[in-house]
Amino acid sequence: MRPKIYLFGDSITEFSFADGGWGSALTNHFTRKADVVVRGYSGYNTRWALKVIERVFPPSEEREAASPLAVTVFFGANDACLPDRYGAFQHVPLHEYKQNLISIVTFLKKKWPATRILLITPPPIDEEGRLQNPYVPNPLNEPERTNDAAGAYANACIAVAKECGVSVIDIWTKMQQVPGWEKACLSDGLHLTRNGNTIVFEEVVKRLEEEGLSPETLPADLPLFSEMDSTNPLKAFEKL
Amino acid sequence: MRPKIYLFGDSITEFSFADGGWGSALTNHFTRKADVVVRGYSGYNTRWALKVIERVFPPSEEREAASPLAVTVFFGANDACLPDRYGAFQHVPLHEYKQNLISIVTFLKKKWPATRILLITPPPIDEEGRLQNPYVPNPLNEPERTNDAAGAYANACIAVAKECGVSVIDIWTKMQQVPGWEKACLSDGLHLTRNGNTIVFEEVVKRLEEEGLSPETLPADLPLFSEMDSTNPLKAFEKL
Repeated sequence: MRPKIYLFGDSITEFSFADGGWGSALTNHFTRKADVVVRGYSGYNTRWALKVIERVFPPSEEREAASPLAVTVFFGANDACLPDRYGAFQHVPLHEYKQNLISIVTFLKKKWPATRILLITPPPIDEEGRLQNPYVPNPLNEPERTNDAAGAYANACIAVAKECGVSVIDIWTKMQQVPGWEKACLSDGLHLTRNGNTIVFEEVVKRLEEEGLSPETLPADLPLFSEMDSTNPLKAFEKL
Repeated sequence: MRPKIYLFGDSITEFSFADGGWGSALTNHFTRKADVVVRGYSGYNTRWALKVIERVFPPSEEREAASPLAVTVFFGANDACLPDRYGAFQHVPLHEYKQNLISIVTFLKKKWPATRILLITPPPIDEEGRLQNPYVPNPLNEPERTNDAAGAYANACIAVAKECGVSVIDIWTKMQQVPGWEKACLSDGLHLTRNGNTIVFEEVVKRLEEEGLSPETLPADLPLFSEMDSTNPLKAFEKL
């Protein structure tokens, strides 16, 4: 009855319902219009995403009458871990990342031809922030991710979007337009602050609007209080 | 694959994904363990809820393998509108409210016998806050809701929970234990502030834990990064 919007990605998607998160904001934005379903998998890269994609979007879902309105695909921050630093086990070479993203888009397009697919590039990296927040011991004191590497993956993501004919948000570039983006948008050099979350939220809303998806264009799930007749509220339920 | 927790109620449920909302917090709390699905209908009372309950929880949902883990049922704030004030069209007499709540619980129990049902009483009312925030013209300048009336509906809700053998959160009493609860917990005399949302979130978590539902006891959806072998991360996906 209420269509879905899936958020598929890594920790930046998984954590999107933490305080001030872009997933919560999106749920609130589409209140009574769509269900926002989070499918974020912390630490995952596109290689691992492809290992699980058929379980994330199982065939049984197809029994549901309607395909989802949209799926955001937000991977790359982990693929872009440098191959010679402590995050090497998450690293995926650039050419494979590109191919994997294409496979993810192809899977979704085949499954749900009418669903809007929205790629999101990895965010920029604040290398100083990463040094202060290693998730495993980091005796060399070198960041496991660099902003340059993230930028290369962002460009690859944009190229895939173009190649596949789907929308893309270049959050890597967008965030770096914010003065002091390193601390303003990123809490640990990688994950999003409230400000960073707001930027992602606003960009997703803007892009979905461009694709014709907004609360204004979607039907409400059940009669809205604002449209009910206070002299005869039960009338609203007669036509259901 | 991921079980659901439904939030069924009025605006206090519908708005639970706004900034600092208890629905978002619950989604984040059950990350990778359960999907929190919001089914809040602003302005609705139990009479209207019963008109739509079969559409909110349609038979098709039963095709899904598993019944939801839990359903919160959070109505009464609108039923408790006074019958002689501007919110009269939302008013439901106390005895009917009680009967309607029983019908809602009965419907859910019949549909999903194993699902935990968690009633939540209406919150307290700050009458001064209501006077400042009428949603229709209020020339008499009298609040459309009183705290006493809300308390009577809260007591009826508690009685229904006892009668039906389901859990209940007495948020009416709990919030009034907060010093300055009128402004600390309520933004307009009725809806929840960030503090008020936190109280609801914590109470729901506590009650679900008592019923055996917590992130610790639920299986994760797909391998967790924290449990992966960094020397052979792909091993985690072999057993899927």
